[in-house]
Amino acid sequence: MTTGSPASAALIALDWGTSSLRAYRLDARGNTLDTRHLPWGIMRLPQPLQDGAASTALSGFDLAFEQACGDWLRAEPALPVIACGMVGSAQGWKEAAYLDVPVDLERIGTLLTKVERGTATPVHIVPGLIQRHGLPNVMRGEETQVFGVMFDQARTSDPHAADSVLIGLPGTHSKWVNARRGRVTHFDTFMTGEVYAALRGHTILGRTMSEAPAADMAAFERGLKVAGAPAGRAGVLSTIFSTRALGLTGELPSASQADYLSGLLIGHEVAALAEMLRQQGEPPRIVLCGEPALCQRYILAMQHYGLGTPEQAQNATERGLWHLAVCAGLVAAETPSSASV
Amino acid sequence: MTTGSPASAALIALDWGTSSLRAYRLDARGNTLDTRHLPWGIMRLPQPLQDGAASTALSGFDLAFEQACGDWLRAEPALPVIACGMVGSAQGWKEAAYLDVPVDLERIGTLLTKVERGTATPVHIVPGLIQRHGLPNVMRGEETQVFGVMFDQARTSDPHAADSVLIGLPGTHSKWVNARRGRVTHFDTFMTGEVYAALRGHTILGRTMSEAPAADMAAFERGLKVAGAPAGRAGVLSTIFSTRALGLTGELPSASQADYLSGLLIGHEVAALAEMLRQQGEPPRIVLCGEPALCQRYILAMQHYGLGTPEQAQNATERGLWHLAVCAGLVAAETPSSASV
Repeated sequence: MTTGSPASAALIALDWGTSSLRAYRLDARGNTLDTRHLPWGIMRLPQPLQDGAASTALSGFDLAFEQACGDWLRAEPALPVIACGMVGSAQGWKEAAYLDVPVDLERIGTLLTKVERGTATPVHIVPGLIQRHGLPNVMRGEETQVFGVMFDQARTSDPHAADSVLIGLPGTHSKWVNARRGRVTHFDTFMTGEVYAALRGHTILGRTMSEAPAADMAAFERGLKVAGAPAGRAGVLSTIFSTRALGLTGELPSASQADYLSGLLIGHEVAALAEMLRQQGEPPRIVLCGEPALCQRYILAMQHYGLGTPEQAQNATERGLWHLAVCAGLVAAETPSSASV
Repeated sequence: MTTGSPASAALIALDWGTSSLRAYRLDARGNTLDTRHLPWGIMRLPQPLQDGAASTALSGFDLAFEQACGDWLRAEPALPVIACGMVGSAQGWKEAAYLDVPVDLERIGTLLTKVERGTATPVHIVPGLIQRHGLPNVMRGEETQVFGVMFDQARTSDPHAADSVLIGLPGTHSKWVNARRGRVTHFDTFMTGEVYAALRGHTILGRTMSEAPAADMAAFERGLKVAGAPAGRAGVLSTIFSTRALGLTGELPSASQADYLSGLLIGHEVAALAEMLRQQGEPPRIVLCGEPALCQRYILAMQHYGLGTPEQAQNATERGLWHLAVCAGLVAAETPSSASV
C-alpha cells in the first residue's frame, strides 16, 4: 500500500500497550490502508538522545510516535490521531481518566484526553473503564475492542445480535465483558496469561519442562478437563502441582508439560466463568476476540464446559478506534464499505 | 551446648531441603543437643575446589555435609546419620525411592537409602511418598514431619488422639496429610507459597507493592475473606487482580498489597480444603506444623472458614527423624524424657 503517492487517509489509529505499538492508517471509510507493528510498548520505549539539550529533547513517547507515523503525518499534516491502551495509564504518555461502568460505549468517544504536541497535530487518548461494585476492576485498551465488536455487530441484519452479549478477550489478562444494547454493564479479569508465564518461568514447574516442536493439544485438553473433574476440586493452586507430579510418575513427558499447564489454567478460568453464567440463568451470546491460536484454546475450553462455540470477531481494535474517532468528531461518519466489516 | 567435652550423642539427623540444611545432634533419648542451620540446600551447594584431582575431589554434598556435622563425627565416629528431604530426590545426593500411599508410617523407617562414604559412616536417606490415585502427588521431607507428629501424639493420654488426623504443613508447597492409626491415607499439595513469590516477584502485581514496616494483618484478613465471598467466586486467577485494582482505586495502600495477596491465596487454599472436608462428613482433628508466623496466618484462615483452631506441633522434623532412626534400628528405642515432647 505504501507508494510514492499513497491513497488519501482520514485517521491515524494507535493501539499502544505495555509491550508493543501498532499503528493503523485508515481511509475515510475506516478501511485500513497501512499497518505497522513496532516493539515500542510503554515499558520499552526507545531511548532519547542524551545531548544535554534537555529543553528540546524528544521523549521516548515522541520517538516511538515518530517511528510509528511521523512520515504519514508529514504527508498529510492535518490527519487526526487517536490512541488506546496503556499509553493512557499513569505510566503512559498522559494519564486518561477511567470511566465508571456501567457506561454507554458511545460516551467513551466524547471523553478523550488530548496530548498537545506544540503546533503539530495532538494525540487523543481513549479512557479506560473502571468497575467499582464488588471487587474493583479496570481495563485499558479492551474497551476499544469491545466498542469495535459491538458497533459492527449493531449494524448486522440480526435484530437480536446487539441485545446482550459476552465478549471474551483472552490474553495476558483475560477480560470477559458483559454488554447490552451498546452499554458495558460488567466485566471480570483473569490473570491467566501472566500467571502461566510466571509459573513457567519462575517456579519449579518450569524446571522439568522442555521446548515442544509443536503445540501438544492432547496435553492441553487433558489439563482442561482436570480443572472441572473431581480431581480438580481443590482448585488451581493445587492442580498445577500435577504438572510436576505427572512428570515424576512418567505420565507426562517434559515437552507436554507446558501445554498441560496451559490447559489447567484456561480450564479453571472457563469452568469458573461457566459456573457464574449458570447462576445468572440463560447464557448470553458469546463473541471471542484475540490472537487466533489462543482463541482456539479458549474455544476448546468453552465447548468442554458447555458454553458452545463462540463467534469470533476480527480487527476489533482498529474498528473500535475508527468508530470512537467518529463519535468524537475527529472524522466524519460515513457508511463503511461492506469489505471493511 | 557446644563445649570442649560435649555430651555424648546417639544420632545425627539432617533436614536437607532445596534451599537450606538443618543439622541436629540428638542424645540417646532423642533430645536435641545441638542444632546448625546452613544455607547449603541441594540447589545451592558449596562449590568444590577445581584442583584437577577429580578422582579425590569432594562433591558439593560432601562439602556441605562436612560443614554440617564433620566435627561431630570426628568426635564420635560411630554415630549413625539419617537425612530427609530433597537430598533424596533425582537432583539430590542419591535418589531414594518413593513409597506408595496408603502406607504405614513405620514402614518408612525400614526402607532407607544408604549413601556409602568409603570407610566413614554412611548417610541413610528417608524415602518420599507418592500417591497414584486421582491426580498423582509427591512429597519429600514432609513424611518425616508427619511421622514426628503422629508418633508423639500416639503416646499422649487421649485414646482418640491418634485415630484420625489431618496434618497441615504450610510452606512453599503446602501439604495437607490425612492419617489414621499410624497410616498415611491421602494427601494434597497446594503451591501457595511458591505462587505467592512468583506473583510478587514476576507479575504486574509486584510493581505497585512497597515494603511494609510490619505485617498488615488487617489487609491479610481482608484478602482471606474475599476468597470465600461472592466477589471471589471467579476463583484465584481472577481475585488476585483486585490487589492491583484496589490500589488503583485508592482502597489498598502499596505497603498493604503483599499481605492482602497473601490473604487471598491462603484464603483460596483453606476455603477449598474446608469445602472438601465438608463433603467428607465429620471434620477430623487438625494439627498444624510449620514456621510460627505462617502458621498464625493459616490459623486465622481456618477459623474464618469454619475449621476451628488447630493444634500446633513443635519440632516435628527432628522428632520424626529420631523415631525413623529407631524404626530403622540405627539407634536403640528408649522412652524419651517428657521435656523432649
